[in-house]
Amino acid sequence: MRKVSIIGGDEIRWGVLKERTFPDMISEAGSKAISDSGIEKKAIQAIYVGNFGAPAFVGQNTVGSLVATTLGLPNVPAFRIEAACSSGAIAFREAYIAVAAGIYDFVLVLGIEKMNTKESSEVIQLIAQGTYAPETAMGLNAPAMFAMYAQAHMKKYGTTKEQLAHVSAKSYYHGSLNPHAHMQKPFSVREVLEAPIIASPLGRHDCSLVTDGAAAVVICPLELAKRYNPKPIEVVASAIAAETFKVSQRESFTSFGCTKRAVTQAFAISGMAHKDISFVECHDCFSITEILNMEDLGFFQPGDAAPAVVEGRTRIGGQIPFNVSGGLKSKGHAIGATGVGQIVEVVYQLRGLAGPRQVKNAETALTHMLGGTPSVCTIHIFKKGF
Amino acid sequence: MRKVSIIGGDEIRWGVLKERTFPDMISEAGSKAISDSGIEKKAIQAIYVGNFGAPAFVGQNTVGSLVATTLGLPNVPAFRIEAACSSGAIAFREAYIAVAAGIYDFVLVLGIEKMNTKESSEVIQLIAQGTYAPETAMGLNAPAMFAMYAQAHMKKYGTTKEQLAHVSAKSYYHGSLNPHAHMQKPFSVREVLEAPIIASPLGRHDCSLVTDGAAAVVICPLELAKRYNPKPIEVVASAIAAETFKVSQRESFTSFGCTKRAVTQAFAISGMAHKDISFVECHDCFSITEILNMEDLGFFQPGDAAPAVVEGRTRIGGQIPFNVSGGLKSKGHAIGATGVGQIVEVVYQLRGLAGPRQVKNAETALTHMLGGTPSVCTIHIFKKGF
Repeated sequence: MRKVSIIGGDEIRWGVLKERTFPDMISEAGSKAISDSGIEKKAIQAIYVGNFGAPAFVGQNTVGSLVATTLGLPNVPAFRIEAACSSGAIAFREAYIAVAAGIYDFVLVLGIEKMNTKESSEVIQLIAQGTYAPETAMGLNAPAMFAMYAQAHMKKYGTTKEQLAHVSAKSYYHGSLNPHAHMQKPFSVREVLEAPIIASPLGRHDCSLVTDGAAAVVICPLELAKRYNPKPIEVVASAIAAETFKVSQRESFTSFGCTKRAVTQAFAISGMAHKDISFVECHDCFSITEILNMEDLGFFQPGDAAPAVVEGRTRIGGQIPFNVSGGLKSKGHAIGATGVGQIVEVVYQLRGLAGPRQVKNAETALTHMLGGTPSVCTIHIFKKGF
Repeated sequence: MRKVSIIGGDEIRWGVLKERTFPDMISEAGSKAISDSGIEKKAIQAIYVGNFGAPAFVGQNTVGSLVATTLGLPNVPAFRIEAACSSGAIAFREAYIAVAAGIYDFVLVLGIEKMNTKESSEVIQLIAQGTYAPETAMGLNAPAMFAMYAQAHMKKYGTTKEQLAHVSAKSYYHGSLNPHAHMQKPFSVREVLEAPIIASPLGRHDCSLVTDGAAAVVICPLELAKRYNPKPIEVVASAIAAETFKVSQRESFTSFGCTKRAVTQAFAISGMAHKDISFVECHDCFSITEILNMEDLGFFQPGDAAPAVVEGRTRIGGQIPFNVSGGLKSKGHAIGATGVGQIVEVVYQLRGLAGPRQVKNAETALTHMLGGTPSVCTIHIFKKGF
């Protein structure tokens, strides 16, 4: 297994992009990432695409071939990976494995989702195809499901709705510093608390955004990276774990078993410890999810995460910044793109190019994506390559 | 890179399975493959799923998690790979890479598609999402597209509609010997010729079937295989190649460039030659496609394939049997399952368990799947492991 590095990464500005076509989004994200990498486009040997729902959202399946041809790389094999919100992260993982194994030297990973193509009610139904159909049919869509986790966490640890609001306000603040973010406006804790309830206790500002977005990175063996990029980023761990797709069979509603198992793997592979991580991009589909993630990832003890957020310990400049990009809450959640977008944020941060949201002395990062109910978790750890 | 082998494989009976649920199909195919492998179910470390259209056909995305949980393996990471008709073959390839790289020892690859859930007109539209949307909108769905190839091949090489009919009659005959086939009834050349025209010159019997099906295989490093299975099958080559998604930009309508590039790779990796291959399972979405495949794969010179079919050289017992399972024409085309189903046929044949359709002294096999317009081709070569 060869060491693998990221030599290029970039994305479009995320948002409600009704005026942009799907190929146009592919073209900008892919071309910018390749350009950033310093390689010639023709060096790309394979393309791994993360996408959740293009057949329904834009009427196009076989998205891999569309991406390759749109980027002017028609003879480059390409295919799509789908695991709900973890689609982009798993596309990255699979590409990483192929490069580590020596199958390819230069691979493009592109995540894309264009969701704002339908009426809201239909978009909600299509997103709900990502959860377990028999349970979804009984009303257990994502907001309902994560509201159950919130209620359980409140009961067990005394977590409050106001503490949850601090998570969202923090992410909105981070997103306001990110020119690629969907929502570039900060909201106060009071504004978050006053939003209409979606599924109690979660209000509209506790929910992530329905976002159109695209992001891409180029990876290659670390040994080749220095020829192209003076600041490559090394992939020091890739981990994946799962738990039951059936929410009705969960053992816990105050933690995600898949995250716990994946992070144990990731730290074991990396040889690193929590204190070595400069910042985290995690799957904050709802405010409560970030709280659970903070605890499941082991950065805080169970019950300690919510107070820590209120104390500002996960803000930029805090003890361990979470979702410095704005996260799913503010940068936005373009389902199949989000996992790749997190890695683009790592590229910006570890190169010191994140502007006002720069994490000082960022040397390493951990990215975390859930998928499904959540039934799968993908974690990567990165560090500066040289 | 470790050598990789198949230690188990099986499938359900394919067909129009209106009475079977999607989980029921997963359960039978997956359980039979695991049981056949001789390993304990809990040894499975990852599941790679090939599926084209479950969100639209059965209202379920995140199919990987559904497969894992349905098989009683909720903690096993699983995800879906989609590349139109090449979905199952690429799922196998990705799993192969991960095992070869040492990421996992035991991996299940499962292909599934349940398509007969809608009215025909809607099924046709959903299948057409696999081709390039702007061209599809102008009428270039799969039958129209492959009819263009047929017309071009007829013009260039004098191929006739009757010769095409021999391809279908041959595949129907093979399928009639396969208890897992969708269509277990032979049709004569005359019957094929008399079928209604779908897209001239292709009639209904020149087209593959709209099939519900599921198939699964278990792979592991060859060095571990002998502990579990006295007749493992070695994966001696995995190859993938692409060409433009836009049919309007094709260089040729008498061959598929992606097949030519993939087969060159596959033979180079395997160190084998055409004469070493005992039989071929290829992507015969239409009768003309099998003719092109025979030539693109290099088993016949351009223009020589059609006469060879008429002479019976691709029948069981002939020079190089093609689609001994019945192929997409007769075993059926359950899109995301087909590539895995081909490999299950290899398992049966190389173990000598294929009954009346057994290829005598079968030592090796080549499987070939196209996907998209076709814009991607995946090829694997197998041989008896010990």
